[in-house]
Amino acid sequence: MERVLIADIGSHVDRDVEIRGWLYNIRSKGKLHFLQLRDGSGRIQGVAEENTVGPAYAEAIRGLKMEASVKVRGRVRRDERAPTGFELTVADVEVVQNPDLDYPIAKKEHGIDFLLENRHLWLRSSRPHAMMRIRDTAIMAFRLFFHEEGFLLIDTPILTGSIGESAGTLFEVPYFDLGTAYLAQTGQLYLEAACAAYGRVYNFGPTFRAEKSKTRRHLTEFWMLEAEVAYADNEDNMRLQERMVSAVVTAVLAGHRDDLAVLERDTTPLEKVTVPFDRQDYGDAVKALQAKGSAIQWGDDLGGEDETVLTKMHERPVFVTNYPKKAKAFYMKENPANPDTVLCSDLLAPEGYGEIIGGSQREDVLEKLLARIREEKLPEESYGWYLDLRKFGSVPHSGYGIGLERTLAWICGVQHIRECIPFPRTISRIYP
Amino acid sequence: MERVLIADIGSHVDRDVEIRGWLYNIRSKGKLHFLQLRDGSGRIQGVAEENTVGPAYAEAIRGLKMEASVKVRGRVRRDERAPTGFELTVADVEVVQNPDLDYPIAKKEHGIDFLLENRHLWLRSSRPHAMMRIRDTAIMAFRLFFHEEGFLLIDTPILTGSIGESAGTLFEVPYFDLGTAYLAQTGQLYLEAACAAYGRVYNFGPTFRAEKSKTRRHLTEFWMLEAEVAYADNEDNMRLQERMVSAVVTAVLAGHRDDLAVLERDTTPLEKVTVPFDRQDYGDAVKALQAKGSAIQWGDDLGGEDETVLTKMHERPVFVTNYPKKAKAFYMKENPANPDTVLCSDLLAPEGYGEIIGGSQREDVLEKLLARIREEKLPEESYGWYLDLRKFGSVPHSGYGIGLERTLAWICGVQHIRECIPFPRTISRIYP
Repeated sequence: MERVLIADIGSHVDRDVEIRGWLYNIRSKGKLHFLQLRDGSGRIQGVAEENTVGPAYAEAIRGLKMEASVKVRGRVRRDERAPTGFELTVADVEVVQNPDLDYPIAKKEHGIDFLLENRHLWLRSSRPHAMMRIRDTAIMAFRLFFHEEGFLLIDTPILTGSIGESAGTLFEVPYFDLGTAYLAQTGQLYLEAACAAYGRVYNFGPTFRAEKSKTRRHLTEFWMLEAEVAYADNEDNMRLQERMVSAVVTAVLAGHRDDLAVLERDTTPLEKVTVPFDRQDYGDAVKALQAKGSAIQWGDDLGGEDETVLTKMHERPVFVTNYPKKAKAFYMKENPANPDTVLCSDLLAPEGYGEIIGGSQREDVLEKLLARIREEKLPEESYGWYLDLRKFGSVPHSGYGIGLERTLAWICGVQHIRECIPFPRTISRIYP
Repeated sequence: MERVLIADIGSHVDRDVEIRGWLYNIRSKGKLHFLQLRDGSGRIQGVAEENTVGPAYAEAIRGLKMEASVKVRGRVRRDERAPTGFELTVADVEVVQNPDLDYPIAKKEHGIDFLLENRHLWLRSSRPHAMMRIRDTAIMAFRLFFHEEGFLLIDTPILTGSIGESAGTLFEVPYFDLGTAYLAQTGQLYLEAACAAYGRVYNFGPTFRAEKSKTRRHLTEFWMLEAEVAYADNEDNMRLQERMVSAVVTAVLAGHRDDLAVLERDTTPLEKVTVPFDRQDYGDAVKALQAKGSAIQWGDDLGGEDETVLTKMHERPVFVTNYPKKAKAFYMKENPANPDTVLCSDLLAPEGYGEIIGGSQREDVLEKLLARIREEKLPEESYGWYLDLRKFGSVPHSGYGIGLERTLAWICGVQHIRECIPFPRTISRIYP
């Protein structure tokens, strides 16, 4: 008998097939048993009638516990009432392993801590499955976007010397005889080297922040995509970002209406995510926020609350541009039109989600960059190779980083980004 | 004037264009200057005649140092003698930044330590460029293979509790109030959880080994792809692996003849990489090695030298199957036909390259797995969630891990895997 995946069942109507999977639920009505089956590719209902399957199978079926692994053989029937349009008339059931214990994740509501502690099992539920399918598609959409744009993927290192944005949030790793290495919180500086070699480059990998932040927007380990382009200013940068975000949203909408429905995501706001996105100068944003009662002063970085308020004024993602120099990292290029600000932009996702991208034009003038490194009292000797990039063929260049899980939280309309990664890491969790 | 990429120059013949890039070399013959230009997308020669460009440009050109960043404007000419088939007749040159210093990487041969110390600049050379282009294609080929096969990408965590293969080679990371976290040296256990949820899964990310090995096959940070399939035995596993490897080799051959030529790779052996690959039982391999003079005894793992000898007996990659249990990890499934061995296979790349994949069927019987964990004196309490997978719907399942850089070293025919990653990390290097 042919073994088939539930996802492919539609091409086997009225044929006998074998499904290998798990029993995620069972309901019985006298001698009629409704087996809810899943195999990772999809879900289907198997209907087993005791008179048809015979007493041995009937007994086996009655003894099944949730999440038993089973091979179920039977005939595929078209059934308009079934959510997928198909049903399986069960001929027999082969039990691979039937749990001794009751499955810990039942229908009842569980607290988030319990679910996270059982993440290895929780992944089997329909909500995480929908999320992981969307995550998979979004990642492929990101990669295909850059592939088709002629970017070269450059995987930047995780283990790095003392170089990066802010030393206070670095994880430390004892490293042989070299002292301490740090887990990279950005690959940007490496991408700047690579973009001087290959023009247009990106990375996409895990990123680490030892921040003691316990908010719905923070993980200690998350995935980030960074892109860097030579001979590009921050205007080019924003145009690249909006095309990229729009491509990813389009890919998710095209392939995952069903999964978005499982996540109870209203897709109306997503349909509006079309190029170009809105743009707002930082100064104007501060005024708008003050008018709404925020205590923000010119010079402050936008807080999470400010971002939420601001994004609710926009239907589409909005770029906030030209932040004060003192609120941003040392490598951002001074704005010639106003040297108190830098040529940068944060992209805020709508509906209150806030920052998903931080980007800027980079300081390409050696003397200015060096002055900023000294101003910030960064360890100059660690930046030797980075300064080389301004000595040998420096060019205007720009880039950005987008947080994958924050982007997914917005696209999927979920509250906390810990739902958007298979095994979330927070300051209080490294298990399972 | 239209700005074009060198890669697209063929569609601009006899038109005036602007190229933005770098001068990687210059040669002069009296008043004739040959500018070797690169922009990351390709390379082209610009010919500047002093009488044509005028005295100001001529002076600028004469003053250019290697790796100066320049915008060069001129007319595209078809030229059969040029390596790319095109040449640029230079009209003018705009210098973006001309180095004060001589570029450190000259034509002369440099030692590997010097090149690694200047990896941020070395990346600009033709050999690393060829390698990074092939790496980009190989990574996309891996991902598209699994995408098209219906696998779900599951990014497994890097920061983990005390769980993994061998505690002796783990990097340690102080982790808030939770004590010590470790950098994952495999995501396999997590993928096993995910494959019980989604059937067919893979990951692809950086992996860490704190091994004090200073060989041409070792990096402390490298990229690994792992796949895990439910309801699959090790025979299915090997079939998946050979199709995957063959798909990647095919993609590289299809797109990178020119880059393989830069790397001086004879592609004849690669043409022979067709499915099915050879298979050899471990016991037979030991006998064959002994006949060649190796000191290996039944029960030993294959050393690097043994692998080299063995692969030279095969034209194609070869699976060595059913290793002794004591030489392999605790999670591999006992071979019912010979309980001293396990259902596993290592895939050795030909031409002396050796192991690129380690795979096995996993022990799916709770009692046997538990016995192995106790035999190996592993911390049982850390494996609670992993043991759950054998309690709730355990199924036969198999998987493997393939090292990206080792695979690239073989495909590209390079000696040392440090060439196969943008910024290599070894026990003595985390700079740049």
